[in-house]
Amino acid sequence: MTRLTLAVDAMGGDFGPRVTVPSALQALASHSHLDLLLVGIPDTITPLLAKADPFLVGRLQVIPAESVIASDVRTSQAIRNSRGSSMRIALELVKEGRAQACVSAGNTGALMGLAKLLIKPLDGIERPALMTVLPHQQRGKTVVLDLGANVDSDSDMLVQFAVMGAVMAEEVLGTDRPRVALLNIGQEETKGLESIRAAASVLKAAEEINFIGYMEGNDLLTGKTDVLVCDGFVGNVTLKTMEGVVRMFLSLLKSSGEGKKRSWWLMLLGRWIQKRLAQRFGHLNPDQYNGACLLGLRGTVIKSHGAANQRAFAVAIEQAEQAARRLVPERIAARLDAVLARSDKA
Amino acid sequence: MTRLTLAVDAMGGDFGPRVTVPSALQALASHSHLDLLLVGIPDTITPLLAKADPFLVGRLQVIPAESVIASDVRTSQAIRNSRGSSMRIALELVKEGRAQACVSAGNTGALMGLAKLLIKPLDGIERPALMTVLPHQQRGKTVVLDLGANVDSDSDMLVQFAVMGAVMAEEVLGTDRPRVALLNIGQEETKGLESIRAAASVLKAAEEINFIGYMEGNDLLTGKTDVLVCDGFVGNVTLKTMEGVVRMFLSLLKSSGEGKKRSWWLMLLGRWIQKRLAQRFGHLNPDQYNGACLLGLRGTVIKSHGAANQRAFAVAIEQAEQAARRLVPERIAARLDAVLARSDKA
Repeated sequence: MTRLTLAVDAMGGDFGPRVTVPSALQALASHSHLDLLLVGIPDTITPLLAKADPFLVGRLQVIPAESVIASDVRTSQAIRNSRGSSMRIALELVKEGRAQACVSAGNTGALMGLAKLLIKPLDGIERPALMTVLPHQQRGKTVVLDLGANVDSDSDMLVQFAVMGAVMAEEVLGTDRPRVALLNIGQEETKGLESIRAAASVLKAAEEINFIGYMEGNDLLTGKTDVLVCDGFVGNVTLKTMEGVVRMFLSLLKSSGEGKKRSWWLMLLGRWIQKRLAQRFGHLNPDQYNGACLLGLRGTVIKSHGAANQRAFAVAIEQAEQAARRLVPERIAARLDAVLARSDKA
Repeated sequence: MTRLTLAVDAMGGDFGPRVTVPSALQALASHSHLDLLLVGIPDTITPLLAKADPFLVGRLQVIPAESVIASDVRTSQAIRNSRGSSMRIALELVKEGRAQACVSAGNTGALMGLAKLLIKPLDGIERPALMTVLPHQQRGKTVVLDLGANVDSDSDMLVQFAVMGAVMAEEVLGTDRPRVALLNIGQEETKGLESIRAAASVLKAAEEINFIGYMEGNDLLTGKTDVLVCDGFVGNVTLKTMEGVVRMFLSLLKSSGEGKKRSWWLMLLGRWIQKRLAQRFGHLNPDQYNGACLLGLRGTVIKSHGAANQRAFAVAIEQAEQAARRLVPERIAARLDAVLARSDKA
């Protein structure tokens, strides 16, 4: 495999280098064609490398930063004061071509703003969208976007999201002629917001897109579509609702029987049941699919959950590796050209 | 307790009288102060009463209807052809004061349209909202609205929803000074749609409302608020997402271990575990809280899920009983007067 270099904002997220550095080492160990640029305050990173395997450390370079963008600062202020920050330097490495993608668990607004400013949207894309790949009931996966890069989306934006989502499903999930649906509050053609109905009529006419119509919230995890498109407000609320319910179930399963005195065999039995249930539901755990991809830019930018643990952040790094290896931005650009040319003719 | 009379659209829903009639008998058996008017095609209802307890049947009157509104017909067409239908007659019984509330599992659009037409919105309410009471993790309950009565909501409507939700939480759940939150994509004041931010500033100033700020999708079931307000599109997608995930979990729990040959003791153990889990999660089962209330009208109208089974439809009848007994429409009207008078002065 061709060698790939990724930039990692080592300072972002709730835990900073304590999580990002072990995750980076984990990703290097699993992917021998990978090199990483760890951007951050060197003093906080190097001690964490002291005991690591020297072969892995050899494929990793610390790029010094002077500051860190706080997670709770306003986007406009964060961008104004971003010079020298780990997040900005990581994005600049992508811009300059020194890295093929970048990953950060830092301030979402700042990451999206800086990415747009530095890496620039593709031709034909008004606004980038946040995309994630959700596991579903059939043990397959669904591409969902926008998850909150935009608060409001008009019909043109929804069509662009659909094209980007379809390319992701084909290139990253390997789905042939992926089914594309719009999230709506009913399946009839007359339902929902004007912007959604207008997007539906464009998508229905686009031969490049296998548009299957509307889908409702209860179908999010049923696997009836490969790509689910919605505006950023709805996508954000929907994803967080789903994660909230899944986490609640997982925590209830875990806590079953805690706090009661039990005989040893009931305890053992309890653990065995927990393990079985964890196997059954584990693939739905939000940690397993951490990492939203900012699609529509001239480079790959992955946003990790701020609260990601080591395993979850390593998953985000792997997403960056995949997207960069499959040349996702280039392929989206090519597909967009085809759909836009056709809709201009119409 | 004062006697109450409710009108039940016996023909609505996927199963019609086969579900609604046994549910009605069940509700009569549990509530001795209740009388029911069962509206429908008599030939489809009376056979189902033949073997019922005559004391219950004595508190039940069949009101004949000539037609049924189909569940898949367009709202405008359904309303045009509604004369003589079971749904319309049930609503007319409320309008004429012969019933204190009505329940239907029929066509949602038609029910909302006809209810608005016949029962009329309260002064100060632009549009009625669909509300439900969701069980949460702390074994308490959260009032959520709008669930899809409106596709789009401006800030005035969101404020009206908040007032209606607060009254519901006080009167029906008995919550003192209920906490009210707006569903948004972040907790910072600068986040989200303009309409939400404008509603927040009105609610913050309203002394009658205990407004606690924004809440995100992952907090839907955590019990951090007593009332959660959102526009109808987002509310519908959120609720359906939640129900989809909960149903998936419950079905996975149920199917655990099916399809494998097992020794008898493992089978027994499996059933015991299932029962324990059902106890633990049962209160989250969507059947347990069936029935959305159309708030903001001069009377009480409850919409049941179309697919409701006997138990779920009985829960919807009980919701109607509660709302009518607590005089919810009258109390909402009084509270609205107070908040609107204050915001006019400001």
